[in-house]
Amino acid sequence: MLPQTLGIVGLGAVGGSVAWDATQSGVPRVVGYSRSTRDAVAAVKAGAVTGLMRDAAAVVEAADLVVFATPPADTLELLETLGPAMRERGVFGTDVTSIKVQVMRVAEAQALQEVFAGSHPLLGTHETGFTAARPSQLRGSVVYVTPLAGGSDAGREIEDFWSRAVGAHPVTIDADRHDAMVAWTGQLPHVVAATLAGALAKHGPAGVTHGRTALEATRAASSSPEAWAEILIANRRQVLEALRHFGGEVDALREALDEDNLAKVRRSLEAGAGWRRRFDE
Amino acid sequence: MLPQTLGIVGLGAVGGSVAWDATQSGVPRVVGYSRSTRDAVAAVKAGAVTGLMRDAAAVVEAADLVVFATPPADTLELLETLGPAMRERGVFGTDVTSIKVQVMRVAEAQALQEVFAGSHPLLGTHETGFTAARPSQLRGSVVYVTPLAGGSDAGREIEDFWSRAVGAHPVTIDADRHDAMVAWTGQLPHVVAATLAGALAKHGPAGVTHGRTALEATRAASSSPEAWAEILIANRRQVLEALRHFGGEVDALREALDEDNLAKVRRSLEAGAGWRRRFDE
Repeated sequence: MLPQTLGIVGLGAVGGSVAWDATQSGVPRVVGYSRSTRDAVAAVKAGAVTGLMRDAAAVVEAADLVVFATPPADTLELLETLGPAMRERGVFGTDVTSIKVQVMRVAEAQALQEVFAGSHPLLGTHETGFTAARPSQLRGSVVYVTPLAGGSDAGREIEDFWSRAVGAHPVTIDADRHDAMVAWTGQLPHVVAATLAGALAKHGPAGVTHGRTALEATRAASSSPEAWAEILIANRRQVLEALRHFGGEVDALREALDEDNLAKVRRSLEAGAGWRRRFDE
Repeated sequence: MLPQTLGIVGLGAVGGSVAWDATQSGVPRVVGYSRSTRDAVAAVKAGAVTGLMRDAAAVVEAADLVVFATPPADTLELLETLGPAMRERGVFGTDVTSIKVQVMRVAEAQALQEVFAGSHPLLGTHETGFTAARPSQLRGSVVYVTPLAGGSDAGREIEDFWSRAVGAHPVTIDADRHDAMVAWTGQLPHVVAATLAGALAKHGPAGVTHGRTALEATRAASSSPEAWAEILIANRRQVLEALRHFGGEVDALREALDEDNLAKVRRSLEAGAGWRRRFDE
């Protein structure tokens, strides 16, 4: 659906971009709330929202579709607090976190299947705050949508919102499958980038020039440790499983180096090379 | 020095770029040789070199400064074979590998201190072959230069070449210190990118969309496994030491996830975040 009044709770990089897109796509009213006064003021000044509300409850009250664009723990809390009002007033809703199993568990406990479906847009920025918001930032990108059992109508409304208001590509997926998948596609890569940055920070030489690989391989590490700790803890079993496999690859290479075995080192680099080259084309 | 005749052995991404820069900087003759006929033909067609020679020995014979822009093992071999001719004819020379201790050991055995100083330009491309060569690709980038004991005159000539012919910033450094440093700044990041790509290739889900972090964190993995195996083996003690520290960071995060300890996960992400943000500005 393209709502008459869209509500956005959280006006950071994701919430600000979604608001901005919706405004430009012709949604008549886009009302927002942000705990950060700076983000709220910036969103109004930029014309990304048409109005600001005093709190998240007021956003839900005014909207016929609400997007919770907040960090994981806040999102779970908002769903618990505002779920009853959404259900009673029939306000559609979605979120933008990468932790779909936990979010859908709360939504299910609140019996929100007719109004709520989870979302996870693959944004690809590590900046935070409204200064990182851009109209069209999500245009053409994949948004995973996770409806509850019995919630296919709500799922369709949310899918329709992402494609019509934002120009994104919604892909419906089961929450369990989603979390198993992003443990590999998003969370393992984040953990690797963060721990590499940690190792360089604590043990690497100071005052030296880092090559392009070092900077690229660690870029994600500058993302919010608070938000990422919540994400990793929420999906920790799947992340631990992916980390176990990664550890096996590192150990194999370490062993080959330890044995001074050139052919074995080369072989252990080859699997990743073949895989990664498919994305270079 | 700005040579009258520059010789380039190897016309790939680095050799091709250096040749091209030198030609554009007014070096009268830039002669090259490449084992790859395709690279050699492309370099002539592009005007990156003014002429081709039949082999590496002919390049040394024609040049007053020669750059070995070849993979590590080839470079060591070329230095052994052509070192005597360089010393006898007083042909200045340098290489472009990241393994300075091994290269300088061969150069020392050949008594090349008056004509040879090692180099390691921080190129930052993972593509190979002349198609990845560009004029000005190395302009403004750091090039480490490692003279031998008693080789400061040769070191100055090579530094001068990098700054005048290529527009790069030469930085003189001891070969031991260089190798200890690049184990952290270049090789550990490469190993991490390659093993992450290997884990995703072998154990990750197929046919899914990877986020920006996954693609960035693995980009280096598509570089030549052959060349990188040589580099890692050549500097294996330093790489193993860096890997040991990296493993410690991964283990700490894994432990925190295993304990379901949010605060500990956050703390283990914070060191890298603070370090990486300094490069974002």
